[in-house]
Amino acid sequence: MTEIDRVIQLLAKLPGLGPRSARRAALFLFKRRESLLLPLAQALAESAERVRACGNCGNLDTVDPCEICADGRRDGRRICVVEDVADLWAIERSGAFSGGYHVLGGTLSALEGVGPDELRIEPLVARIAREGVAEIILALSTTVEGQTTAHYLADRLGPSGVAVTRLAHGVPMGGELDYLDEGTLAAALAARRPMQER
Amino acid sequence: MTEIDRVIQLLAKLPGLGPRSARRAALFLFKRRESLLLPLAQALAESAERVRACGNCGNLDTVDPCEICADGRRDGRRICVVEDVADLWAIERSGAFSGGYHVLGGTLSALEGVGPDELRIEPLVARIAREGVAEIILALSTTVEGQTTAHYLADRLGPSGVAVTRLAHGVPMGGELDYLDEGTLAAALAARRPMQER
Repeated sequence: MTEIDRVIQLLAKLPGLGPRSARRAALFLFKRRESLLLPLAQALAESAERVRACGNCGNLDTVDPCEICADGRRDGRRICVVEDVADLWAIERSGAFSGGYHVLGGTLSALEGVGPDELRIEPLVARIAREGVAEIILALSTTVEGQTTAHYLADRLGPSGVAVTRLAHGVPMGGELDYLDEGTLAAALAARRPMQER
Repeated sequence: MTEIDRVIQLLAKLPGLGPRSARRAALFLFKRRESLLLPLAQALAESAERVRACGNCGNLDTVDPCEICADGRRDGRRICVVEDVADLWAIERSGAFSGGYHVLGGTLSALEGVGPDELRIEPLVARIAREGVAEIILALSTTVEGQTTAHYLADRLGPSGVAVTRLAHGVPMGGELDYLDEGTLAAALAARRPMQER
């Protein structure tokens, strides 16, 4: 196999790229040797060297503990629990949260054989005791697995006396009611708020 | 900027990947350090080292002349002219052609300021004289630019006495007539063939 086929084969394993788009991406790279191919090869090699999971929260970073855990200006008394690093990044982009995080590494799933021991739940329990956490915000998917995990965590964390909250359900900003599913509409209606409130 | 951001920024430049899917691809890579991240970094570095354009036909390969040009079993008297290496690969995958290729590197485009000198047309003329080529098959896009380029080449190559042909237009295999554009239908009707013929 030539280097060309090898690059295509590996690119095709990335999410969002199939065999066809992997070929296109590879050609794109080969035509931009200096501006893209070499820089990408180097960035990947360096990230393989330096990027690792934070031992405390599970975030990916080049330092451990990660920048968020090490940031003294953040409110460590509130921890937002997410399934995956991608969710952590999404919440960080929103700029609406200044506490800490805890990455579970997935959701409970009987079907896929993921039990509590496969997730980073015990490290979370330990953090709550150690760090004097006041509130756990569950930012999990509104799928069956996500909600099962949320209920499990609420039960598991109950005895520790920490407040356990979840994200609000409702109409997405910029969303048209007409395109919204009935479940979300019903949830938004049930959780309606007075207009004066922010 | 951390290595994480750098990888995302570079991946987002690939065709088919936006900022969102680049983040997803980067996370996917970081979680598969041994099986994907390191192999891809190495494959890219090696391809940057070894992949280059064939001096004869313009194909990308790790050897120059490329494997196709160097293959004595192929019929060098027929040359298939394509816009891009991706088109060459597509024809090779069809397995229906055993001649040589010539990659133009684009199409004539007044709008984008691409004239004959920007394309590898003179090298093609030189090859025809040097290699005793009998037939030039134009496999160019059926866009305005592609067809303009085809007509230009037919005129330019006429004096050399070489036969200039183009791919047939017609109904794609597996295509439903109902979904076909009128232009293709009209072309397929005009070029209709007796049923006995293959």
